[in-house]
Amino acid sequence: MASDKSGWSERELIFNIAEIFAATNPAVIVGIGDDAAILARPENHIVVTTDMAVEDVHFKVNWSSAEEIGRKVAAANLADIYAMGGRPKYLTVAMSATGSEELEWMLGIARGIAHEAKIVGAQVVGGDLARGEKIVISITAIGECKKEILRSGARVGDSIYISTLPGWSAAGLLALQKNIRGGAVDFAISEHRAPSVDYDNAEQIAIGANSLCDISDSLMIQAEQMASASGVEFEIDGELIKAHPEFAELSQVAELLDVSIFDLILSGGEDHVFLATGHALKGFEIGKVRAGSGIRLTHLATPQPGWQHFS
Amino acid sequence: MASDKSGWSERELIFNIAEIFAATNPAVIVGIGDDAAILARPENHIVVTTDMAVEDVHFKVNWSSAEEIGRKVAAANLADIYAMGGRPKYLTVAMSATGSEELEWMLGIARGIAHEAKIVGAQVVGGDLARGEKIVISITAIGECKKEILRSGARVGDSIYISTLPGWSAAGLLALQKNIRGGAVDFAISEHRAPSVDYDNAEQIAIGANSLCDISDSLMIQAEQMASASGVEFEIDGELIKAHPEFAELSQVAELLDVSIFDLILSGGEDHVFLATGHALKGFEIGKVRAGSGIRLTHLATPQPGWQHFS
Repeated sequence: MASDKSGWSERELIFNIAEIFAATNPAVIVGIGDDAAILARPENHIVVTTDMAVEDVHFKVNWSSAEEIGRKVAAANLADIYAMGGRPKYLTVAMSATGSEELEWMLGIARGIAHEAKIVGAQVVGGDLARGEKIVISITAIGECKKEILRSGARVGDSIYISTLPGWSAAGLLALQKNIRGGAVDFAISEHRAPSVDYDNAEQIAIGANSLCDISDSLMIQAEQMASASGVEFEIDGELIKAHPEFAELSQVAELLDVSIFDLILSGGEDHVFLATGHALKGFEIGKVRAGSGIRLTHLATPQPGWQHFS
Repeated sequence: MASDKSGWSERELIFNIAEIFAATNPAVIVGIGDDAAILARPENHIVVTTDMAVEDVHFKVNWSSAEEIGRKVAAANLADIYAMGGRPKYLTVAMSATGSEELEWMLGIARGIAHEAKIVGAQVVGGDLARGEKIVISITAIGECKKEILRSGARVGDSIYISTLPGWSAAGLLALQKNIRGGAVDFAISEHRAPSVDYDNAEQIAIGANSLCDISDSLMIQAEQMASASGVEFEIDGELIKAHPEFAELSQVAELLDVSIFDLILSGGEDHVFLATGHALKGFEIGKVRAGSGIRLTHLATPQPGWQHFS
């Protein structure tokens, strides 16, 4: 690229980034380039969420490409909008960098974010660049929502559903740490680098749901949060989980990695699988909402003593 | 505080922060605690801006209290909303910290942000906490705007106005670096630590303005950006600047710091003074918009060779 060897000029970077994020949405009245973005008045309630990812804590530049890092951070934000029953429309991106990165690497971050945003029809409308010793990316997603679905809406008698099977991202992280590769392990690694969040599934599972959230930390942690917010008990059934069509493949990966399959599924995060409760939802049923509090795990041969949060 | 010696628990911190940011605005339908915030449909266009501040680049924990740091980062975002002719309503805050900070220090950041937000009637509605080696604070401000005022609206024949005299924050930074204290220097230092942005002035100067922006980098940089965006020349008159009621006091500070007063005024940033063009605006006139391009400085005894951006 045209940047000199010592790095890129901020002007050059911003010019290129503005091109990657070029607005095609007529609701973006003023996009990147002024003090702030101006967006048309929405039809519905606004949904807002923000998420920060720090180099060597949430991602490693040796393990992931710039595009994958951009996609992953964007996905975490977009998933949170869907987790309220909303649709994301706009993103702002603030990022710190050392200044010694390659211009192409910096643009890779932007392309990754733009890639993920495009899947859901969202648009990057503003941002900020700062100097710092570590790469830090902070994204805010803004969306719209006709009727919000909260964590606190679970009712006794609801069934509990997941949109897909969690655990792949945690398996991928372990594989990277243990330097194990091949077959389904490679799929797990790619899911850790940039999860393929199924946003359509998120919209499907939300239809008629009483409560909804996305699994960013782990199934156990988010289920506990929903149970607590709703004043109910979540009974999660190991037999039901075993019947998930992806269970066999993830089991093979767990064996290769020498880890318990249920550790991956119950304690792995960052897949951004959606967890919902209700009746006859378009998801995979894993249990029931009962009167009480906390989590009850049933049909697990070896009850786990403690559920450690991966990464 | 109740935190153990090694730091605070995230749960304890979030509980306290949620109290500091407790929502009083009925338009906040869902605040902190779910996957995302839900805000009532606004009356007007949405205005969005984001800004990231990095420890040792934008602030130093030895030079500023936690409250001052929180105020300063919030002010930078709020000013950007006013700089579009908008009114801020909501903030989201993402922050990384090492985990070894005192709980009270972390809450000081939150109190500083809440303090600045309260001045303008804005509300923190969401956030994220991350681990990182440096403190990084990224705020997104969301507001409303009936009629946006852009950088590109300056017209030949407009007068150029500032809301107050810039340079105080840059003087304060120099004073901290040179370890000079006393009198008006102390005021400059406090302006560097947390600028007292005059948001009312921002609303006043915006009335009837053709173009508007806030001086985050420096008067020269933002004037050049406005001139370029508008396809005009900004003629800035040193004699007019000298007539500003604060000029004499800032001159004394400049002398004590052994720096040119015009270096402070033209090249100092972070005061978040507002720069506008139009006719008979409620601001202090410093020049005229002419046909042409770039900046022309007149009535400056010693034209400066280059305008370095402070900090």
